[in-house]
Amino acid sequence: MNLPAEHPLVAGLTDQSRLVRAYRGERTDTVPVWFMRQAGRSLPEYRELRVATRMLDACLDPVLAAEITLQPVRRHGVDAGIFFSDIVVPLRLAGVDVDIVPGQGPVFRRAYGDAAGVAELTAIDPSMLDAAFAPITEAVRRTVAELNSLDNGSGTATPLIGFAGAPFTLAAYLAAGGPSKDHLEARALMHADPGAWAALMWWTAQVTGRFLGAQVLAGASAAQLFDSWAGSLSVADYERHTAPASRQALSFVHELGYEIAGVRRSVPIVHFGTGTGELLGAMREVGADVIGVDHRVPLDVAAGRVGAGVPLQGNLDPALLSAPVTVMDAAVRDVLARGTAAPGHVFNLGHGVPPGTDPAVLTRIVTVVHEDAAA
Amino acid sequence: MNLPAEHPLVAGLTDQSRLVRAYRGERTDTVPVWFMRQAGRSLPEYRELRVATRMLDACLDPVLAAEITLQPVRRHGVDAGIFFSDIVVPLRLAGVDVDIVPGQGPVFRRAYGDAAGVAELTAIDPSMLDAAFAPITEAVRRTVAELNSLDNGSGTATPLIGFAGAPFTLAAYLAAGGPSKDHLEARALMHADPGAWAALMWWTAQVTGRFLGAQVLAGASAAQLFDSWAGSLSVADYERHTAPASRQALSFVHELGYEIAGVRRSVPIVHFGTGTGELLGAMREVGADVIGVDHRVPLDVAAGRVGAGVPLQGNLDPALLSAPVTVMDAAVRDVLARGTAAPGHVFNLGHGVPPGTDPAVLTRIVTVVHEDAAA
Repeated sequence: MNLPAEHPLVAGLTDQSRLVRAYRGERTDTVPVWFMRQAGRSLPEYRELRVATRMLDACLDPVLAAEITLQPVRRHGVDAGIFFSDIVVPLRLAGVDVDIVPGQGPVFRRAYGDAAGVAELTAIDPSMLDAAFAPITEAVRRTVAELNSLDNGSGTATPLIGFAGAPFTLAAYLAAGGPSKDHLEARALMHADPGAWAALMWWTAQVTGRFLGAQVLAGASAAQLFDSWAGSLSVADYERHTAPASRQALSFVHELGYEIAGVRRSVPIVHFGTGTGELLGAMREVGADVIGVDHRVPLDVAAGRVGAGVPLQGNLDPALLSAPVTVMDAAVRDVLARGTAAPGHVFNLGHGVPPGTDPAVLTRIVTVVHEDAAA
Repeated sequence: MNLPAEHPLVAGLTDQSRLVRAYRGERTDTVPVWFMRQAGRSLPEYRELRVATRMLDACLDPVLAAEITLQPVRRHGVDAGIFFSDIVVPLRLAGVDVDIVPGQGPVFRRAYGDAAGVAELTAIDPSMLDAAFAPITEAVRRTVAELNSLDNGSGTATPLIGFAGAPFTLAAYLAAGGPSKDHLEARALMHADPGAWAALMWWTAQVTGRFLGAQVLAGASAAQLFDSWAGSLSVADYERHTAPASRQALSFVHELGYEIAGVRRSVPIVHFGTGTGELLGAMREVGADVIGVDHRVPLDVAAGRVGAGVPLQGNLDPALLSAPVTVMDAAVRDVLARGTAAPGHVFNLGHGVPPGTDPAVLTRIVTVVHEDAAA
């Protein structure tokens, strides 16, 4: 399926932005930068907006979700917005009884870690979700409308990155009925009942893939699949029990191509997880264009693992955000230097912005990154 | 310092046990097996004993700690006991205000993640601990007295393994004042104030090293240092900010040697952490004889990473414990086959026994391991 003519990429608004170019593996005037969880608790304007609204309600309110997505773009001058949402949003829209409990995370009415639970989930037709995504589509449209007139220095509109959780990470929550230490319930199900596990992963891939596809269709210029908990898997289990579903989820984005001057292009896809040093190559193989790297593996080492020609995103240790300025600046420059080992580099943290971060520190990093690369 | 003549290793009671021989890199008649957290909630006799006693009180009651340590040895016929304790026990004995909250973990009265906190801790003289360890020493003596007459098939007494947390893992709890997701507070301190960090690590190494040394002196035939959270570190941060303290902690065990037929030997030391695939070589370098491997990295791959001549311990995925018997048996045999890549192999899980585990499954694994290796 082709993206509509008014899509920012197709209309040429973001196709030449630093972010999209770096995601395509091109060198840009300065390295683009954004921060995972840049829209969130580190910003006073976010805390003010969220004060009377529960997390999932905020995600499902198009005006609020758009405003929260835009806040860090305006404040920090980052090179991209990341759509404000939560990985369980498509589950909620599918009718699954889940809420996000502050300080705890997503909590489900029941755990779905057995065949009966999986049967209950898979009885829900994922294709009905496309209509349920209306508040998401609306929020993306509102966000993109403002980003289209926001030039953060690229000489182009600011692109929006779509956001979704990978099937394994969603399944880890579903199998445990909430957050778990080691995602033991999910790993137990995959070994104890591989059939039920495959059904759960198929369904989750449909749900989260459609969620990501809907964001791209509505105007996102790139997409990031978060497999936060994949690092709990051995390479063998990742490849056998996880990769097929991630590939399937990403197919919903892959089919949304566009043509420029007769050349078919696809929307760039970033794939990220924490503790995934051993999995970087396998995560690329599921159909990702760009690999996000956490703070554990230096970018030059990661470049060797993902193979030639793969742009990287990352990977300043968030623990550096409270260090003295000279220490932090040196660390930022080290990340930039190592990032030159990849054909394209998008600066980011190795994980999400910690809630207590001083937002001025993030703004400063944007300046340092943009000035360093220009030098 | 030499171990006393009545120590089980010196007296020849455990020197030829399967466990100690495998830890020395020798092939044994069958692969020895024990389970991390074998003493604990998976056993009904443990739950019964603990019903009216808080965790730290149980650790500090010599009769209770000895009995809990012995329960799984009697029930499963494993090749070793692991001393029942908690990594924060030496902190409590040093006067630090900490309790273990069920379902949560160790919670401190305050966080020690800044220079003032570190100063408060380091004002405590670690050498005064040697006297405070009396209940630990007494518990080890009681345990060893029974293990000395318990032959689980080796034709020798059953050895006891001493237990302690590594400095980084303790510092991760101390810096956050309790459990934390990513150990961000510890990593922040090491970058923001390397001097305070080094002081904290020095003090923690003294405290936990003396704790481990006291167990060996009282009769443990081996020692395991748990660096549960080291997997949150990059190799560079591990080597710069963590390894020196781990080395220092282990020196308290290294100095406790013994002589047999004029040859000086040292007590074998196992070093283990989760998510440490990238760190296996560096963890060996701090003075470990044996490397424990979690479920993420197959033992034959791990053998290549730690270097030639290093025995391995591990690494069945605990998620397999609830799988059908045929699946689990195949996984056990796969671990055994891969373990032949190391000069010595001690079978274990890749992490602690999950609380809900059916103890019959553990007993079965002991049988499968002992029979397979004998075949």
